Amino acid sequence: MTQTSSPPTHVPGDRAAPPDQATVDLLGLLAYGELTAFERMATDARMSPTLDDKIALAAMAAAEFSHFQAICEELDRLGVDREHAMAPFIGPLTAFHNSTAPADWLESLVKAYVGDNIAADFYREIAERLPSPSPSRELVLSVLDDTGHAAFAVDRVRAAIEVNPTVAGRLALWARRLVGEALTQAQRVGVDRDALTGLLVGVGDLDALAAIFNRIMAAHGRRMAALGLSA
Amino acid sequence: MTQTSSPPTHVPGDRAAPPDQATVDLLGLLAYGELTAFERMATDARMSPTLDDKIALAAMAAAEFSHFQAICEELDRLGVDREHAMAPFIGPLTAFHNSTAPADWLESLVKAYVGDNIAADFYREIAERLPSPSPSRELVLSVLDDTGHAAFAVDRVRAAIEVNPTVAGRLALWARRLVGEALTQAQRVGVDRDALTGLLVGVGDLDALAAIFNRIMAAHGRRMAALGLSA
Repeated sequence: MTQTSSPPTHVPGDRAAPPDQATVDLLGLLAYGELTAFERMATDARMSPTLDDKIALAAMAAAEFSHFQAICEELDRLGVDREHAMAPFIGPLTAFHNSTAPADWLESLVKAYVGDNIAADFYREIAERLPSPSPSRELVLSVLDDTGHAAFAVDRVRAAIEVNPTVAGRLALWARRLVGEALTQAQRVGVDRDALTGLLVGVGDLDALAAIFNRIMAAHGRRMAALGLSA
Repeated sequence: MTQTSSPPTHVPGDRAAPPDQATVDLLGLLAYGELTAFERMATDARMSPTLDDKIALAAMAAAEFSHFQAICEELDRLGVDREHAMAPFIGPLTAFHNSTAPADWLESLVKAYVGDNIAADFYREIAERLPSPSPSRELVLSVLDDTGHAAFAVDRVRAAIEVNPTVAGRLALWARRLVGEALTQAQRVGVDRDALTGLLVGVGDLDALAAIFNRIMAAHGRRMAALGLSA
């Protein structure tokens, strides 16, 4: 496990105490995650079958962009260069999205609901282990509280399954692929970013790590059930 | 010239005086215009060569979506159904965007700068002829003041021409095609929407109409010159 990039750059006029590496990493990861979520949802909105659906997905995309801006402002406040903070995560997040481009509207809904919520749960487990209290930690948790609900996806997917029950199998496979690709990229990030991994390893024992993993997968299972899909 | 759709639907609890058809048409046209501009810019952000450029275009897209929301709230306030107001303009705006999909990053910048500003100028000429004072008129004018600047496009396009002067010819042709396609669709809207056309025809004589057209084309010429392109 090697830290591949240099420490964060501090710009002149820094008004905050030098941030720890784990905070910078989580802010950079989340910032680029929000930016790519914005792009993807805005692009997927083109596939929407109705104007209402298009507006719902576009509104989610715009919300992701305002999260992105809030995190960038926090990086500015910490005196950390934005691009520097995001750079280590561009590769893994781009690879994730390239390998999980939705083929149709239903796949994009499942990705918005299942994918974004599982990512948000994972980020939340990390954020809760950041030094507390800190403005960065509070910002990340509040952004995550406002991310990835996509409750309207549940109605749409359930309605589609009612009309044609065979789509449930295809979408369940799709959700499994999303989780698999996400784990692959999370693993890749973990190998490179000691500070982030350290927070989770810092929980002390394997039982505690297993509890985190189980919490995330249990929440995932509940969302799959809400969609009418087998996990 | 026939009005193809029925009058605007008034929902219960209408708090405002029944709006005139020209106001409803302009709000509907602008709302759908902002929604498609959002989609297009967010999609084009994927072609951006740098993270800075991606963020700049994504920020413009998010601003368009907040305009869209403001106009939708005004339609709600007037008791006019949003979809009903937008419906007559979905065909022409979709046709415009389908016939002018940018092939690369520079074409998308020229479209954002040249296309959106010429549309904004055209909408502004109409808005200034709406009954005054009215909240709808003020909202439209303030949204338009905040639309389509894309000043960063000027730097990027000029820099690209400096590196490779031959792109200037291609981009000038592209801009001419944008204007041609926009006029085609504006004409199509004009044939169907008597109320909007009436505002412009209401200026009284051909000289006044020619003055409007000349103002719009003069501003377009100044933008082309700013980009380093021949109009």
